Amino acid sequence: METTKSHAVYGGTLRYLKHDSATTGTPMTLSVFTPAGEGPFPVLIWLSGLTCTEDNFTTKAGAYKAAAEHGFIIVAPDTSPRGEGVADDPAYDLGQGAGFYVDATQAPWAPHFRMESYVTDELIALIDAECPTTKTRSIFGHSMGGHGALTLALRHPDLFKSVSAFAPISSPTRCPWGEKALSAYLGEDRAEWAKHDAALLIEGGAAAGRFDDILVDQGDADPFLAEQLKPELLAAAAKAAGQRLTLRMQPGYDHSYFFMASFVDDHVAFHATRLKA
Amino acid sequence: METTKSHAVYGGTLRYLKHDSATTGTPMTLSVFTPAGEGPFPVLIWLSGLTCTEDNFTTKAGAYKAAAEHGFIIVAPDTSPRGEGVADDPAYDLGQGAGFYVDATQAPWAPHFRMESYVTDELIALIDAECPTTKTRSIFGHSMGGHGALTLALRHPDLFKSVSAFAPISSPTRCPWGEKALSAYLGEDRAEWAKHDAALLIEGGAAAGRFDDILVDQGDADPFLAEQLKPELLAAAAKAAGQRLTLRMQPGYDHSYFFMASFVDDHVAFHATRLKA
Repeated sequence: METTKSHAVYGGTLRYLKHDSATTGTPMTLSVFTPAGEGPFPVLIWLSGLTCTEDNFTTKAGAYKAAAEHGFIIVAPDTSPRGEGVADDPAYDLGQGAGFYVDATQAPWAPHFRMESYVTDELIALIDAECPTTKTRSIFGHSMGGHGALTLALRHPDLFKSVSAFAPISSPTRCPWGEKALSAYLGEDRAEWAKHDAALLIEGGAAAGRFDDILVDQGDADPFLAEQLKPELLAAAAKAAGQRLTLRMQPGYDHSYFFMASFVDDHVAFHATRLKA
Repeated sequence: METTKSHAVYGGTLRYLKHDSATTGTPMTLSVFTPAGEGPFPVLIWLSGLTCTEDNFTTKAGAYKAAAEHGFIIVAPDTSPRGEGVADDPAYDLGQGAGFYVDATQAPWAPHFRMESYVTDELIALIDAECPTTKTRSIFGHSMGGHGALTLALRHPDLFKSVSAFAPISSPTRCPWGEKALSAYLGEDRAEWAKHDAALLIEGGAAAGRFDDILVDQGDADPFLAEQLKPELLAAAAKAAGQRLTLRMQPGYDHSYFFMASFVDDHVAFHATRLKA
């Protein structure tokens, strides 16, 4: 991994990194916060939303103070492969910046858009190899990245001690963002889509008993709430499956990093309880 | 004032605002954080550095949690007038984005570049008229804005209860950024420059006895430290004048918002002690 920038922050170190990914076949960028001290430290993986790079969370979420206090590494990867020779779409919600944390099976996306494998295989191994980690971790994210955090945790429960989300796309098989992306990346077979739908995964008993609670914060002034995010589907699925899920509707909050910054300390503390148990 | 964006954050409200300034003769933009409750609240005015708009501090400094806890309004104006018909320079350190918090007397800057009057007259009056303030305030800033905070407080001590700075341009008469900007805006008479040099103002006894302490944080890995910022001139001036000044050299920190976010809570607490005394 090549360090492109490094900053002291809250007594720790924030690095922007770049590496050649075997999984995506492209350079991939990420940021890694490491607290002061020798470690080893548990890891929080953050997954960002549509249009984001590794920079949005890093500069705007205000999470590193809590991470420094709890002694966590935080890893924030880019949201897709990028660059010349990588397929793209002019829309903001497909292609580069919109990887949706799945392994694409369809042309032209399949060669590079493999964000599920990138995060769960290569990124985790890379961080455990190159940083002083406890080899334990949790995952959280926002919007498309909230979908990513939930589905990767539910599909790979051995990898994560806990999962939380801000304003996640709760059921991508039942919203325009999800239908567009999953049909492009996975084809028209909706049974394939269902494997990447957090509400359907919970309803189907995925990871049953593996997570004592799932924390979800959602602003009630979020412009994407009714059409795209639909946290009520997540809550209903959890209730039906007997999965504890704490959905906090936050009055007046929108979809921005101002919303996330306001509650990120709660999420870090939620993961701290599980990672240090 | 026109509200262009509004976000809930930490229980309060962050607004991006635009108004037609009588002082600069241009539209001016700013952000205003107002905590929850009826108020009235004391005001912290934040002045940003070269190239910044009102957005940098607002999204990156992580100051609103502490502001919400202490019950402060925070106002962050743009760093200069902007737009067509406003003089500019291709360099990043002169013209638009580089107002230096002085009232220019020289062509082509004099008609619009009046940031000292804008902040100390129009902005303060506007905020007191339109927000639930106690009509008391403090001021802080970064780099060029640290210079702005110090010089505006020293030149107008009746307006501010306290002043602090991150990595300020401590003596603009003795560094390239300052020499370039002050000669352009104020002409070649160095006696005019000296009126806007924090170290020289302190040395000359400006605001003697008005501020019980001045807090300055400076990263020792800041690439601008030796050539542009020179906090040792500020410390020496304070010592010579008997002005208490707490200069904290922060090991490993650079010039970025990661540095400021790491210590901004200390600055808000510093002002809280003075604003609530």
